[in-house]
Amino acid sequence: MADILPATNETTQPGPTSTAIPAADLAAAAAPKHSKEQIVTPFDVSGGVDETGKAVVIDYDKLIDTFGSRRIDAALLERFEKVTGHKPHRMLRRGLVFSHRDVGLLLDKYEKGIPFFLYTGRGPSSDSMHVGHTVPFEFTRYLQEAFNVPLVIMLTDDEKFFHSAKLTLEDCHRFALQNAADIIAIGFDPNKTFMFIDTDFVDGGSGVAFNYNVRVMGKRTTINQIKGTFGFGDSNNIAEFGFPAMQSAAAFATSYPFIFGEDKKRVAKIPCLIPCAIDQDPYFRQCRDNAEKMKYVKPAIIHSVFLPSLRGAETKMSASDTDSSIYLSDTDKQIKRKIGVCFSGGQETREMHRELGGRTDIDIPYQYLRFFLEDDTELERIRVAYEKGEMETSEIKAICTKELTVYVSAFRDRRKAVTEETVKHFLTPRHLDYTGNPFPAIQNSKQTEIETLEKRLAELRATQ
Amino acid sequence: MADILPATNETTQPGPTSTAIPAADLAAAAAPKHSKEQIVTPFDVSGGVDETGKAVVIDYDKLIDTFGSRRIDAALLERFEKVTGHKPHRMLRRGLVFSHRDVGLLLDKYEKGIPFFLYTGRGPSSDSMHVGHTVPFEFTRYLQEAFNVPLVIMLTDDEKFFHSAKLTLEDCHRFALQNAADIIAIGFDPNKTFMFIDTDFVDGGSGVAFNYNVRVMGKRTTINQIKGTFGFGDSNNIAEFGFPAMQSAAAFATSYPFIFGEDKKRVAKIPCLIPCAIDQDPYFRQCRDNAEKMKYVKPAIIHSVFLPSLRGAETKMSASDTDSSIYLSDTDKQIKRKIGVCFSGGQETREMHRELGGRTDIDIPYQYLRFFLEDDTELERIRVAYEKGEMETSEIKAICTKELTVYVSAFRDRRKAVTEETVKHFLTPRHLDYTGNPFPAIQNSKQTEIETLEKRLAELRATQ
Repeated sequence: MADILPATNETTQPGPTSTAIPAADLAAAAAPKHSKEQIVTPFDVSGGVDETGKAVVIDYDKLIDTFGSRRIDAALLERFEKVTGHKPHRMLRRGLVFSHRDVGLLLDKYEKGIPFFLYTGRGPSSDSMHVGHTVPFEFTRYLQEAFNVPLVIMLTDDEKFFHSAKLTLEDCHRFALQNAADIIAIGFDPNKTFMFIDTDFVDGGSGVAFNYNVRVMGKRTTINQIKGTFGFGDSNNIAEFGFPAMQSAAAFATSYPFIFGEDKKRVAKIPCLIPCAIDQDPYFRQCRDNAEKMKYVKPAIIHSVFLPSLRGAETKMSASDTDSSIYLSDTDKQIKRKIGVCFSGGQETREMHRELGGRTDIDIPYQYLRFFLEDDTELERIRVAYEKGEMETSEIKAICTKELTVYVSAFRDRRKAVTEETVKHFLTPRHLDYTGNPFPAIQNSKQTEIETLEKRLAELRATQ
Repeated sequence: MADILPATNETTQPGPTSTAIPAADLAAAAAPKHSKEQIVTPFDVSGGVDETGKAVVIDYDKLIDTFGSRRIDAALLERFEKVTGHKPHRMLRRGLVFSHRDVGLLLDKYEKGIPFFLYTGRGPSSDSMHVGHTVPFEFTRYLQEAFNVPLVIMLTDDEKFFHSAKLTLEDCHRFALQNAADIIAIGFDPNKTFMFIDTDFVDGGSGVAFNYNVRVMGKRTTINQIKGTFGFGDSNNIAEFGFPAMQSAAAFATSYPFIFGEDKKRVAKIPCLIPCAIDQDPYFRQCRDNAEKMKYVKPAIIHSVFLPSLRGAETKMSASDTDSSIYLSDTDKQIKRKIGVCFSGGQETREMHRELGGRTDIDIPYQYLRFFLEDDTELERIRVAYEKGEMETSEIKAICTKELTVYVSAFRDRRKAVTEETVKHFLTPRHLDYTGNPFPAIQNSKQTEIETLEKRLAELRATQ
């Protein structure tokens, strides 16, 4: 499969060397059969180790097999573009958003004018977010625009507290507020986005419906299931075992009566699409297992890969390792220094590089450009030139530095505009404005539509 | 030990037969060494079985040993009377409230004028409560009066849902509202009592502090601990494992800033006294284990025995076995019928009864009189007459019927006066009015007292 999926306008050919494969395919070729298993859970992400003791990159194809999700193929992207009228996001085009569950079904419904909502989240483990954290959020923002649907963002301060040996709940709550401002600055629509912090979503009575769903989900989940899904043991705490019910309950429209109305039977059928990094999949597998028994529609999921660490593509950026990450708070100078020393796929000497060419599959600047450079033609030009040895390491690093500097400084400007009031607005349970699909391909019968609208109007008037 | 503890004004001698021992001592004599173990957990209560296959009554002395609590002795009752100025409740005098943790320490503090609060609760498993349910509440009402302190009553609708195969959360919530009205009708002071339903205590923002404590407690409790304490296994659900943190968190004054104020450091030192049936002890053992690590004062506990089933003293009344219980909704006629056929300690024939006398230790009417007849002299007269065979079974049943009819009909009248508004008032998070000890034996230094009062006043004014 090519670096850029053929579903986009710019179709490309596979590069001249066999190493020109997308991140999603990197390890499939690299990992030998007797390698130590990779680990991808919400609590631990690392590629395997081969028999020579060398760390290998994460094998995303293998994750699709293990998790039982489906690869996003050209046909799905074509359908996505047809239904939304939007060109697939660069992360979709490049296989960085690579796997899904039931997105086809969701597109079918959207096409018919059935509304849905987006849900994603963040575990606030520190007050500073890095560019790796923004990857699923950038993609989510794009989905919100493409579909014109409401979005719920959950900040799991309690989860981070449950799993940390040193953080207090107050720490995590403070981080959540700071992260909220950062997330808002990514550019979410204030009229279509509701954000909540777990420990605060008991405020103003608005959390009653959500906490109801948490309890019903918790009752349906056994200790055995959590052990099987997350690998916890009997020395883990009960809050860690209990938390998955919370992350699951947030995927049901009935948790948000202030957005979707009080008619639980109708709201139970509103589907959810969850954009998230692949490590969050275990939570939602569990959620999907129980959803139908609870008479709720199963959420659809769309998975992204991890932005690799500056230290190399074997693992993801880590908030606790400052030299592995570019922070949203980094200065231009810091970004330049970090990219300057990051892991390179170039050859040892200029001569060797000219002769053998660079390895884009392990070259961090090239990998970052796949995430952040919008222009497909330019990206392809860079890939070809670097692999042929025509482009030097210093050049590709300069291009990457420029792109990331532009990205982070634009973020910085938007971040300055986010006030305490802005954060408060996003955190306030309220009705959201969204159109959904403005031109559904198949209308409901007029009578059904009139009934639905009348019902909804009556609800809205009653709560005015 | 005599039926009536010598700490009261009416001291009595042991009865003429060796069977005249209090409920708390019943099984100590009766249970042979090789008997099948009794079970007393929040989820299962039954006496053991002896080697002949005969059910034996619950051995409360053994529970004190197993649970590691302390017997309430005459010295403690004497101190209780001295400190509160109130004659010990008949259940205290008769060993029906028989065991405790740290009540001595609590009395020391109360004597010095340090305030505390009472906390008890109910699991709403059905819409009808029986007289067995009112036992700990009757005693709690007495404590509220004797100490003049705030009381918190928790209705655990979620707990009952988590553990039930058939009840929905809506069922349990409905039961909670109905039970709330019944509990109010027992006679709690509306100015000193706050009652909450678990799934609603996320309303109006008032549940934030409580839910904070739930999370911190949950983090401190491992799966191993819950297994050890409650005997759950891996096929139990995560909500069952999680719930004990909720019941524990309710024992901390910091969970109720609207009652005690926002100064967390000060409020963390306000102790709690939990009156409850002995089967709830495992929850609070766990709570006490973690309290100090959370920098909260350990709650004190005071345990009551169970009101025996109409079918016999081997087990407690059960809400699911209508012939085992007298309901608060029973008519006078139903009460008469039920007492008429309940388990008797009388002899088979009138002649045998006159010769051998009745056995008060297993006679249900006598046992009920110990719970409900206030007059110690009259109770002692009945015991002596019945054991001597001078009083017949029909007579003691008639006395018991009369007492229970008076009790239930008085309840019925009070229950009629409880409106939806009354329930709403009790369920509203609000400031409570209480004096605590009006005449503390040891005053704080004037300066400390002035500082405390000024601080509290400032708090109250700030939230006005």
